[in-house]
Amino acid sequence: MSSQDPLVVFTPSGKRGRFAAGTPILTAARQLGVDLDSVCGGRGICSKCQITPGVGEFSKHGVTVAPDALSAWNAVEERYDQKRGLKPGRRLGCQATVQSDVVIDVPPESQVHKQVVRKAASARAILMDPATRLFFVEVEEPDMHEPTGDFERLERALEKQWDIKGLRADLSLIGKLQKVLRKGDWRVTVALHHDHRAARSTVIDIWPGLHEAGLYGLAIDLGSTTVAAHLTDLETGEVKASSGIMNPQIRFGEDLMSRVSYAMMNPGGEVEMTAAVREALNTLAEEIAKEAEIDASLIVETVFVCNPVMHHLLLGIDPVELGQAPFALATSEALRIDAKELDLTAINPRAKTYVLPCIAGHVGADAAAVALSEEPGKSEDLALMVDVGTNAEILLGDKSRVLACSSPTGPAFEGAQISSGQRAAPGAIEAIRIDPETKEPRFRVIGCDLWSDEEGFAEATAATGITGICGSGIIEAVAEMRLAGLVDPSGLIGGAEKTGTPRSVPEGRTHAYLIHDASAEGGPRITVTQGDIRAIQLAKSALYAGARLLMDTRGVDKVDRVVLAGAFGAHISPLHAMVLGMIPDVPLDKVTSAGNAAGTGARIALCNIAARKEIERVVRQITKVETAIEPKFQEHFVNANAIPHATDPFPELLKHVTLPDVSFNTGGDDGESGGRRRRRRRG
Amino acid sequence: MSSQDPLVVFTPSGKRGRFAAGTPILTAARQLGVDLDSVCGGRGICSKCQITPGVGEFSKHGVTVAPDALSAWNAVEERYDQKRGLKPGRRLGCQATVQSDVVIDVPPESQVHKQVVRKAASARAILMDPATRLFFVEVEEPDMHEPTGDFERLERALEKQWDIKGLRADLSLIGKLQKVLRKGDWRVTVALHHDHRAARSTVIDIWPGLHEAGLYGLAIDLGSTTVAAHLTDLETGEVKASSGIMNPQIRFGEDLMSRVSYAMMNPGGEVEMTAAVREALNTLAEEIAKEAEIDASLIVETVFVCNPVMHHLLLGIDPVELGQAPFALATSEALRIDAKELDLTAINPRAKTYVLPCIAGHVGADAAAVALSEEPGKSEDLALMVDVGTNAEILLGDKSRVLACSSPTGPAFEGAQISSGQRAAPGAIEAIRIDPETKEPRFRVIGCDLWSDEEGFAEATAATGITGICGSGIIEAVAEMRLAGLVDPSGLIGGAEKTGTPRSVPEGRTHAYLIHDASAEGGPRITVTQGDIRAIQLAKSALYAGARLLMDTRGVDKVDRVVLAGAFGAHISPLHAMVLGMIPDVPLDKVTSAGNAAGTGARIALCNIAARKEIERVVRQITKVETAIEPKFQEHFVNANAIPHATDPFPELLKHVTLPDVSFNTGGDDGESGGRRRRRRRG
Repeated sequence: MSSQDPLVVFTPSGKRGRFAAGTPILTAARQLGVDLDSVCGGRGICSKCQITPGVGEFSKHGVTVAPDALSAWNAVEERYDQKRGLKPGRRLGCQATVQSDVVIDVPPESQVHKQVVRKAASARAILMDPATRLFFVEVEEPDMHEPTGDFERLERALEKQWDIKGLRADLSLIGKLQKVLRKGDWRVTVALHHDHRAARSTVIDIWPGLHEAGLYGLAIDLGSTTVAAHLTDLETGEVKASSGIMNPQIRFGEDLMSRVSYAMMNPGGEVEMTAAVREALNTLAEEIAKEAEIDASLIVETVFVCNPVMHHLLLGIDPVELGQAPFALATSEALRIDAKELDLTAINPRAKTYVLPCIAGHVGADAAAVALSEEPGKSEDLALMVDVGTNAEILLGDKSRVLACSSPTGPAFEGAQISSGQRAAPGAIEAIRIDPETKEPRFRVIGCDLWSDEEGFAEATAATGITGICGSGIIEAVAEMRLAGLVDPSGLIGGAEKTGTPRSVPEGRTHAYLIHDASAEGGPRITVTQGDIRAIQLAKSALYAGARLLMDTRGVDKVDRVVLAGAFGAHISPLHAMVLGMIPDVPLDKVTSAGNAAGTGARIALCNIAARKEIERVVRQITKVETAIEPKFQEHFVNANAIPHATDPFPELLKHVTLPDVSFNTGGDDGESGGRRRRRRRG
Repeated sequence: MSSQDPLVVFTPSGKRGRFAAGTPILTAARQLGVDLDSVCGGRGICSKCQITPGVGEFSKHGVTVAPDALSAWNAVEERYDQKRGLKPGRRLGCQATVQSDVVIDVPPESQVHKQVVRKAASARAILMDPATRLFFVEVEEPDMHEPTGDFERLERALEKQWDIKGLRADLSLIGKLQKVLRKGDWRVTVALHHDHRAARSTVIDIWPGLHEAGLYGLAIDLGSTTVAAHLTDLETGEVKASSGIMNPQIRFGEDLMSRVSYAMMNPGGEVEMTAAVREALNTLAEEIAKEAEIDASLIVETVFVCNPVMHHLLLGIDPVELGQAPFALATSEALRIDAKELDLTAINPRAKTYVLPCIAGHVGADAAAVALSEEPGKSEDLALMVDVGTNAEILLGDKSRVLACSSPTGPAFEGAQISSGQRAAPGAIEAIRIDPETKEPRFRVIGCDLWSDEEGFAEATAATGITGICGSGIIEAVAEMRLAGLVDPSGLIGGAEKTGTPRSVPEGRTHAYLIHDASAEGGPRITVTQGDIRAIQLAKSALYAGARLLMDTRGVDKVDRVVLAGAFGAHISPLHAMVLGMIPDVPLDKVTSAGNAAGTGARIALCNIAARKEIERVVRQITKVETAIEPKFQEHFVNANAIPHATDPFPELLKHVTLPDVSFNTGGDDGESGGRRRRRRRG
């Protein structure tokens, strides 16, 4: 280029250069390293390289753009516009050539590395750079005088046309190659997988001509109880469908340790459990593809996050070592495998799978995914991140250091082992408020936006009924009972004579609080029993103790902010969580919800190959804390039993709520821990 | 090391260096880069590092070795000697330490890169350097405070103890890892596969403690008719067993093109054929392991050589494109795949497979294997290499250039499509001589070393009978008939009135030569008919024309030497081949037999990883000549019809034999080509 050549300025990158008149915009973009997409390599058929030329004065760039700064609208553009439609002002970057100085805007959808904005405002965007991408390529026809294989000619074409060196493929791909090449008249689209650890790109699939049906990936959060998947467009990052199913391993044990026991007690039990979850994954993949109306064979990538026991059971590894000290993982690092190794037959037969690394024997790839999504290691202030499922994963960290542990909260937070508990499903009470004066409850059930004291509630819930309390409901119920003075700090429910409400009903030697009674109509009688309170106390003590253990290890007694993830963040009110003493207290405005952070971490790893490398690096640097062997964990666990527990000082919560100073201990009503009372100082 | 330190000289390498007194010989060897084996890494348990110290004067090395130049025989050596026995004079290199100047001999069996001497005297030795080798390793136990996976600790141990960086494994290996590590008390032997294209070594298998049962590989020559395998010890290179079975695809078509047709005519036909050959391979693997009395799961490597159609059918690729111009291969380069991709379930589930590259659509991996074994590209003189099966692979070359083609000889050379023809099996006539005076035949059959005119022949062959003529037999028969004046140069068999023997019997409008008549006893009547002669003429013309085409392309009309490979080399007499005009004439002492060169090439690729790289490089440089489209091939084919054909000049053969100047053409007896006569000039 000479100084006489027209100047081309790209926005938003600001990259600029001079190019000979007649240079296609796509060529100029490539030479300048401007991120302008193209699947067909400039052949005017994929339309990925759409750009918008400016017209007029661009003083910021010192350029005045003439109306004819680009070559005239051509036949290729006309054909594309008639067939598919181009937005007004748009041109194809491979067709429009530079004529004089011009400013070219690359719209977001024309960028390869486009940013996908996440829903939560605080969350960083996902930069698109998936491991598998499409490339249109023209392959030389075979020549008897220069005999090479069709595959080797495809390899050569990709090197020549896309500068992609080194190709490999499964035999199943090579087996379909010849037909597709001939059907496409030697013009084909290939889906190429590349990750930073392989010397060669792998051909995942091949289609005749230009493949326009897209490529998809599944980000899968494989929980002990539920399996959730996001079907994600690998070009745009868009989530096309989200779906979840129950983990069928529940029939082998509700919690992780009972599944480990099942494997120990039943020869081949781990094989059964592996087969069950893999079958469920195929069902899930089929369903989600159907929901999104795509061909399941277009799913070419899967990413898994899960706890260590699920990790091993997914991979077909006996989890027995995870059930006993020293909790040795068979493998801890990230795995790059073929999906068919997991018997994922419902998706593309050559699809790839990435499994995030495990942090430790009790801290799994799900915690790694939270770290990938929430980036504790980049936090300026000290952040506590808590992801609650049947186990809680806890991360504590800032720029200087990140610590992690998991804590065996049990399934109480998910509504299991609760007398009126049930899984989150229509009809389940998910939110509850108790009037501190009248002690009367009002509540909301899943599937209806009305509160129970609002007009039309009975009609709106007639179909589902009011069937029980789910995880978030029981947490709110216990917290509200405490706020209303129905429960004392030790966790004891008062009888009617002390609480002054007939809703305090006798339940054996203890009391229960009656939320809803449909027994007259043959419906359920929904109460919170003393046993329920004890179950929640055990769970929240475990959670709190885990967080405290990390704080001890870090040498702090408070944190700057709390991030709630998982079901916790999505459905549990932070205020009620703090009333219960589930989390250390911080100002309420310092508690944020990250939604399904583990699932988001899986999506990030699905959409961005560098993120995989990043989380592998981060995980190696995380300090692992093993709760099971740490005597201080037991100490914190016992001390955290009260509601709120005896943290000292405990000032922040009380800016928001006032806890009643009641005590129902009568010395004998409750043998477990009712006799234990703790000093509380008000800040 | 200082100049005061003892001097250690290793033989046969001649490497030398000074080492502090007390240095183990194994350590000295490693530091000097001396090729001294060790699986256990110097722990005194594998005994691979045996050495023989010299005693006395070594004037060649300028060293006098004292009797106590090495440390005293120690307890580890004593234990090993009692348990397994050490040869007299041998020490363990990891136990014996340097005390004063010493000369150490490394016996061949203690070298990693030992040479395996091949049977044929002319053949170069095979240098052992297989892709999969054993490593004994001690793995750190898991530690709760430093949680890493067992696999990652194995990886770290291999890096620390063996300097092997980067490890990967199939899930099935990771699934068995934890049990084996604990069973071996954290001391295990791993079989590691490494090839030059992968960044990481792959764990093929793992055993508790020191694995002493060895590692094996299968070198497989997958022919259209027979599948032959050599079970090879991957440590010593020794062939433990060789076995062959019929290719079950014969039921889909005797020759390659009929199998391609079967695939074209029958949807899914190629799938059937692939399944058939893979099943046969499993049977073969099981049988050969049983024969060698090894566990088939110790077979961790397989190498395949085969023609392009068999190549595709083995890999599960529809061979249809190989049946029509331009004969495009789906893939031509060497393949490194998992044996399980070929459904080879009889061997180790994680075994690796290497398939040699194909040279062209008609010139397969079998020809590449011949090139690997016989190295035409390293020949000082111009060598013609011919491997005859149902197709003939032909290589012509020297240091400056190598050319290759294949020629469709058909199955006549294998005894098929011959009236009394049969496969090489006991009872088949494999060699024949005809007395030029009496015209009486004498012959030998497979399974008996006696000639038919020797005493005891009838008794010795009573069990098998005399059942037919195999490939080498028919070639000799036709050549002997020509030498005895029973056949004229055009290929016409004379009647009894002209040949003067009652063995010239009428056969329709033509004549046949009666070799053996057991019809009185209900046995077969074995003749060579006019049709048989024509079939052999067609086959040998194709072979000869292929060789000539390469010579034309190279611009020569003679070659310096001929190498016969395959069944050709093993069973067919070079003299008779030349009488028939199968090969261009050279002095008889310039015709050598390479035995099963394709099978040997497979063995070399099995035993030496560098040979794989080498043949991949060589194949790319070979000039491919396509006989099917070359008009000159047809011309040579027609001209080569006579016995001997009308090569001009044709001097060399006649130094050895005199061909009778007969002609049986009577103008009408034989419509095919009997009327064609060619000028022959004697040199």
